[in-house]
Amino acid sequence: MLRAIQILGSSPSSSGCFSLPHKLKKPHSNFSLISRKPIEATVPNLSRAHSLAFQFRQGCFFRAFQMSYHHSESTLDGGSPSSSSSTSIAIQSAGSTRKINFCQWCGGPTKHEIPDGEEKARAICTHCGKITYENPKMVVGCLIEHENKILLCKRKIQPSYGLWTLPAGYMEIGESAAEGAIRETWEEANAEVEVQSPFAQLDIPLIGQTYIIFLAKLKRPHFSPGPESLECRLFALEDIPFDSLAFSSMLVTLKLYFEDKKVGRPKFHYGIINKRPGTSPSEIHAYTLDHHLKC
Amino acid sequence: MLRAIQILGSSPSSSGCFSLPHKLKKPHSNFSLISRKPIEATVPNLSRAHSLAFQFRQGCFFRAFQMSYHHSESTLDGGSPSSSSSTSIAIQSAGSTRKINFCQWCGGPTKHEIPDGEEKARAICTHCGKITYENPKMVVGCLIEHENKILLCKRKIQPSYGLWTLPAGYMEIGESAAEGAIRETWEEANAEVEVQSPFAQLDIPLIGQTYIIFLAKLKRPHFSPGPESLECRLFALEDIPFDSLAFSSMLVTLKLYFEDKKVGRPKFHYGIINKRPGTSPSEIHAYTLDHHLKC
Repeated sequence: MLRAIQILGSSPSSSGCFSLPHKLKKPHSNFSLISRKPIEATVPNLSRAHSLAFQFRQGCFFRAFQMSYHHSESTLDGGSPSSSSSTSIAIQSAGSTRKINFCQWCGGPTKHEIPDGEEKARAICTHCGKITYENPKMVVGCLIEHENKILLCKRKIQPSYGLWTLPAGYMEIGESAAEGAIRETWEEANAEVEVQSPFAQLDIPLIGQTYIIFLAKLKRPHFSPGPESLECRLFALEDIPFDSLAFSSMLVTLKLYFEDKKVGRPKFHYGIINKRPGTSPSEIHAYTLDHHLKC
Repeated sequence: MLRAIQILGSSPSSSGCFSLPHKLKKPHSNFSLISRKPIEATVPNLSRAHSLAFQFRQGCFFRAFQMSYHHSESTLDGGSPSSSSSTSIAIQSAGSTRKINFCQWCGGPTKHEIPDGEEKARAICTHCGKITYENPKMVVGCLIEHENKILLCKRKIQPSYGLWTLPAGYMEIGESAAEGAIRETWEEANAEVEVQSPFAQLDIPLIGQTYIIFLAKLKRPHFSPGPESLECRLFALEDIPFDSLAFSSMLVTLKLYFEDKKVGRPKFHYGIINKRPGTSPSEIHAYTLDHHLKC
C-alpha cells in the first residue's frame, strides 16, 4: 500500500561527480526555505524546460536531467486515518514543521536538544532519557515486464486517486526490500512476481523517502485489481500514460526504463528527485533529477 | 555515526530468482522463531562452511553465498545513552519484543490492533487515533578507493570498539543517501570525498536495517580520525583485515568488492544478509548472503 506522497522541493543542485561543500555538512541547515504549509501550496504555471547532459566517468554514466512542466492542481488527501497519519509523519519529519512531543516508550514529555556527541537536535525524553530518532523511509516496488509490456495499477485511494502507478509501498520491519516489493505487488495487483534485478534507487530528501524499484517478471500471467486499485493493465512502452501518473518517482522510473530500453537492456540507476519550490504534490513533472548515477 | 548493530539471524533461504510463496506474504509471521534475548545470546562453536554457486539470468548474476565461522564472543553495548536507545529501537522493532506504548504526538496510550485495510497490527493512539509506523532504517556509507587501497576506520565507540569499518551511519531526514554517506565519511575520517557510483544495497531484515554503500574517491589525500575513530588507514586489497571487521555488512561489502576487483571493475550488488540463528552480533562471519543480485 503506497501511502507515500511527494511534496514541494528544494532547489535543484549541480550534477556530475557528487560531493558536498563543507557548508552543507549539516543536512538540515537549509530547511528554513521550506514552506510551512506544503499541503495548501498553489500551482505556479511553470513553463516546460528540459535539458539533458551526459558524462562518462569511472565506468558509470553521470547525467543531469532537468524538467519542469505545468500541471493541474489537486488537494492532498491521505484518505483513511492510517494513511493520513503516515503521510503526516513524512511531511513533518522532512520539514520539521511539527515535533515529537512525547516519548513513545514511557509517555514522558520530550525536550528538543542536541545530544552529547551529535550535531542535530533530537527529541529526548525528559523522564527516561531515550531519544526518538526520525529516519527516512523506504518505498519498495516492482517494474514488471511481461511480453514487452509494463504492468501499472490505477489507484483507488488518495492521494492521486485514478492515476497510474507501479505497485509499491512502504517497506516493513522484518522484510527485505525485494520481499516488500513482491508483497506490495501481490496486494495491489494480485500478481505473483519474481524479482529479477535492482533497477533504481531514487531519494526524495525533502519528504524523507527513498524509492527502491526492482525489475520483476510475472510467475504466471494472472493479475487483477487489489483493494487499492481500480484497474491493472499491461502497457506497451509507447502507450505508457506519462500524463496520468501518480507520483514523480514513478515518472522518473518509467522514463529511465523507457530510455534504457531504447538503447539496450536496463541499467541500475541512482538519483535524487528534487521538486521545484512552490509546486504542489500533484505536479509530478515539476522536478529535477540530480546526481544521477547509472551503472 | 554508526550506532547500528547486527544481531542474530533468521534461517537461510534459497537463492536464485527471487519470489515469495503465499505463506510468506505476511513478513512477520515467522518471528516466533526469534530469540527473545538476543543480546545475551551465547556462541555456538560453528564450523566453517563456505559454498558458492553462480547462475546467469536476465542479464544479471544470481549467486548463493553461504558462510559460517567460529568467532569470539562479545557483549553488546550501545555505548552512550543515545546510541543505546537507537540500538534498542532497532532490535525491538525487528523482533516485536517491546511495543510502542504512547503516541509521540499527543501522549495518549496506544492500543495494538490491525487498522482497517491493513494486515499488520500497529500502535494506534487511543486518544487521537494516529498510527505510529515502524519502518526499516537506512545505513549509508562510502567504500573509498585511493591508489588501489581502501580507507577503513578503527572504531572508538561501542559496539565493536577497536574493530575496522567503512565510514557509515544512519541516513538522516532531509539528506539523500549519497549526501549521508559523504557526511558520515567527513565525521568519521575527516575526509572529503566524491561519490562515484552506487556499489551495494544489503538488507538485514531481522534488525530492520538496509545498508547503502557507494564507491567514492578522496577529493584530496587528507584524512584523520574523527571523534568516533581511533585510527583511519588505507589498506591494500590483500591487507584488508577480514578477521577484525566490525560488522557482517562490512565483511560482505568488502568481500564483494574484493571479488569484483579480481575480475574487473566493481558491479552493483543487492543482497539479504541473514545471520545464523543463535549467534551473537560479534560473530560477523556467521551469516548467509541470500538472493544476491549482481548487475
